[in-house]
Amino acid sequence: MTTSHMTTSQKIDCKNLILTMNLIADHVKEVARELDIENVSKTINELLKAKRVFVMGAGRSGLVGKSFAMRLMHLGFTVFVVGESTTPAVRDDDVVIAVSGSGETPSIVSLGRIAKEIGSALIVITSNTDSTLARMADVTVRIRGRAKNHIEGYLERHMKGEYRTLTPMGTTFEVSTMIFFDSLIAELMVLLDATEDDLRKRHSVFD
Amino acid sequence: MTTSHMTTSQKIDCKNLILTMNLIADHVKEVARELDIENVSKTINELLKAKRVFVMGAGRSGLVGKSFAMRLMHLGFTVFVVGESTTPAVRDDDVVIAVSGSGETPSIVSLGRIAKEIGSALIVITSNTDSTLARMADVTVRIRGRAKNHIEGYLERHMKGEYRTLTPMGTTFEVSTMIFFDSLIAELMVLLDATEDDLRKRHSVFD
Amino acid sequence: MTTSHMTTSQKIDCKNLILTMNLIADHVKEVARELDIENVSKTINELLKAKRVFVMGAGRSGLVGKSFAMRLMHLGFTVFVVGESTTPAVRDDDVVIAVSGSGETPSIVSLGRIAKEIGSALIVITSNTDSTLARMADVTVRIRGRAKNHIEGYLERHMKGEYRTLTPMGTTFEVSTMIFFDSLIAELMVLLDATEDDLRKRHSVFD
Amino acid sequence: MTTSHMTTSQKIDCKNLILTMNLIADHVKEVARELDIENVSKTINELLKAKRVFVMGAGRSGLVGKSFAMRLMHLGFTVFVVGESTTPAVRDDDVVIAVSGSGETPSIVSLGRIAKEIGSALIVITSNTDSTLARMADVTVRIRGRAKNHIEGYLERHMKGEYRTLTPMGTTFEVSTMIFFDSLIAELMVLLDATEDDLRKRHSVFD
Repeated sequence: MTTSHMTTSQKIDCKNLILTMNLIADHVKEVARELDIENVSKTINELLKAKRVFVMGAGRSGLVGKSFAMRLMHLGFTVFVVGESTTPAVRDDDVVIAVSGSGETPSIVSLGRIAKEIGSALIVITSNTDSTLARMADVTVRIRGRAKNHIEGYLERHMKGEYRTLTPMGTTFEVSTMIFFDSLIAELMVLLDATEDDLRKRHSVFD
Repeated sequence: MTTSHMTTSQKIDCKNLILTMNLIADHVKEVARELDIENVSKTINELLKAKRVFVMGAGRSGLVGKSFAMRLMHLGFTVFVVGESTTPAVRDDDVVIAVSGSGETPSIVSLGRIAKEIGSALIVITSNTDSTLARMADVTVRIRGRAKNHIEGYLERHMKGEYRTLTPMGTTFEVSTMIFFDSLIAELMVLLDATEDDLRKRHSVFD
Repeated sequence: MTTSHMTTSQKIDCKNLILTMNLIADHVKEVARELDIENVSKTINELLKAKRVFVMGAGRSGLVGKSFAMRLMHLGFTVFVVGESTTPAVRDDDVVIAVSGSGETPSIVSLGRIAKEIGSALIVITSNTDSTLARMADVTVRIRGRAKNHIEGYLERHMKGEYRTLTPMGTTFEVSTMIFFDSLIAELMVLLDATEDDLRKRHSVFD
Repeated sequence: MTTSHMTTSQKIDCKNLILTMNLIADHVKEVARELDIENVSKTINELLKAKRVFVMGAGRSGLVGKSFAMRLMHLGFTVFVVGESTTPAVRDDDVVIAVSGSGETPSIVSLGRIAKEIGSALIVITSNTDSTLARMADVTVRIRGRAKNHIEGYLERHMKGEYRTLTPMGTTFEVSTMIFFDSLIAELMVLLDATEDDLRKRHSVFD
């Protein structure tokens, strides 16, 4: 950073850091509690039936999608990330998974529209079940964004009413979705009777 | 997927999925509890003093590093991801952050060595404080990988002793590191007196 | 590849390969001959005045854009690739360069529209000066796609009238644009009095 | 750019730009003339026999590799770029193509070594047939880097002996390799009897 930086070291107690880690962990537990099992079950069935899976998202949601795609590959799925070099054309028997907290990310909305025109199944992971993406989806899985306990948690710390959002923009959605995806992998491992060793065999030898 | 897939839908109870979400959330709380505040404080001081920050990691650790780099940019830092197109040469007054669960990822070890030769500060985020990367680091932050309660949690579910790792390979490290980084952003927001609106102004208009 | 592959080796004379290399080289010379110097001059002036440069393109055009962005960084420009992790919000005093052979790539058209709304300068590199992107551009540089001599060249080889396009889809546009960009770098080196050594100093130490 | 920039527009004649385009085109023709047909023929045979193809390179060489991988996918090959999200583990019946002008890029040398340990075929595209990568390759294709006529061409323009390299670092290698790869695609199209339409069907619908 530039001008406003302190040049001498200071001891930092990291209280906000630890508070935020716990807030996020609590949020994840809440997301797990309120998960719509029926839609998640549909999602898993779509994945198991899919010939090929395509994952897409913008910004940090896109990175979370890539993390999921990598594990699907480890599990033996034929999976592609939209925007990477060797991703082929989507066909009507493919499953497309879109990740967008707001459900309104313009590039992902426009890609979702193309996927529906082609006739592929569209699964949307979003905080906003009333969004453009959710409305065009075959299956929508809602992952809560902002934590319910957001204001209270901070009020405790910022007694004088000075309030600051410590998980800016899509942070809680993105992190919760990453954990949701990794837990979906766990469910798939059991359903497909795959072990960690099965996954390790497909792990890039170059990393 | 290919041959072994079921072609008819089945109702899936998602118990393994929800179990895993809770295991990961508990793991994150444990990571928060055992965090070495002194090294995290040093990390923050290095970031605040840095002219430029470089982030690197392979595979899913690399994606988590990118998520962090994006938020540092939102906060106003001059930050680059090693391997992206416009990342310049590292200099001795730069800070390099390496993410590697094992601390032995060959490509990252070799990049870490180059960073030390140049004289830049090297911060290593790893599960393994006894690794090659940790040994060459100026500051090491340990993020526990495998959860302590891993075996117990699964034994409950897989009564007959049939044990399966539901968070394969680096999963818990990667997810915990993502949350650690996002919580580091929270701490930096307070230290730099930055609001969510300050971050939003730098958020890509194209996503 | 799969079924149709020959399993025994055969001696291949590479005549189509060498023909295509020469066709592309001739095409590049033709592109150089018909270059609109006035618009290229405007492009260079925009780059020299820009506080920051943003480059964007989809698919292979995007890769060519990244190659150019990397060299601009070597020359000392502050330059970002749209879609990479640490690319900030575009502002009105930035220059955005869009690469699209057809000038109709949906994602790039929609990003171009956003750039114009913000008020940044939009430079479009395209084969199609009558396209949506060209019409919204401040400066358009035309790089011819399909070669004039395409049909003749192949007729010679495929005597019996059997014609095949050996530079499929955007190939000639993409390759010509890469060479145009590298030659623009040469012009900038002279204008800024930069030597190869100046560029080398900024070259990633990690490659 | 920053301080040294002119703030008023100037008319630029683009002579260096046009000179460089022609120099590069001439260089490509020379590369075509001196191509070692036997090694290119071996390369094509390896590709046709391969179950899967992996492409790797750092920096601009990596971007050129991605361009090639994309076209191989359009042609129906099963192809991956090392470092992208869904790239699986390399096996002994895979073909790995490494792109490195110097043949000494540390990360690519180390990946090449891993590929050889696994037993996959290693094809190296390089300017330097005496390099570490070339020595471990099963097949090496040499693409000349610096142009023979480099000095003469510039002497003409820079009469007073003031010489400047207008194609800095790997520029001519990278551009020539891109054209070589695209021409290899042309050869494969003829061998596999594939038309432009066949390729278009696999082109990403999202670009």
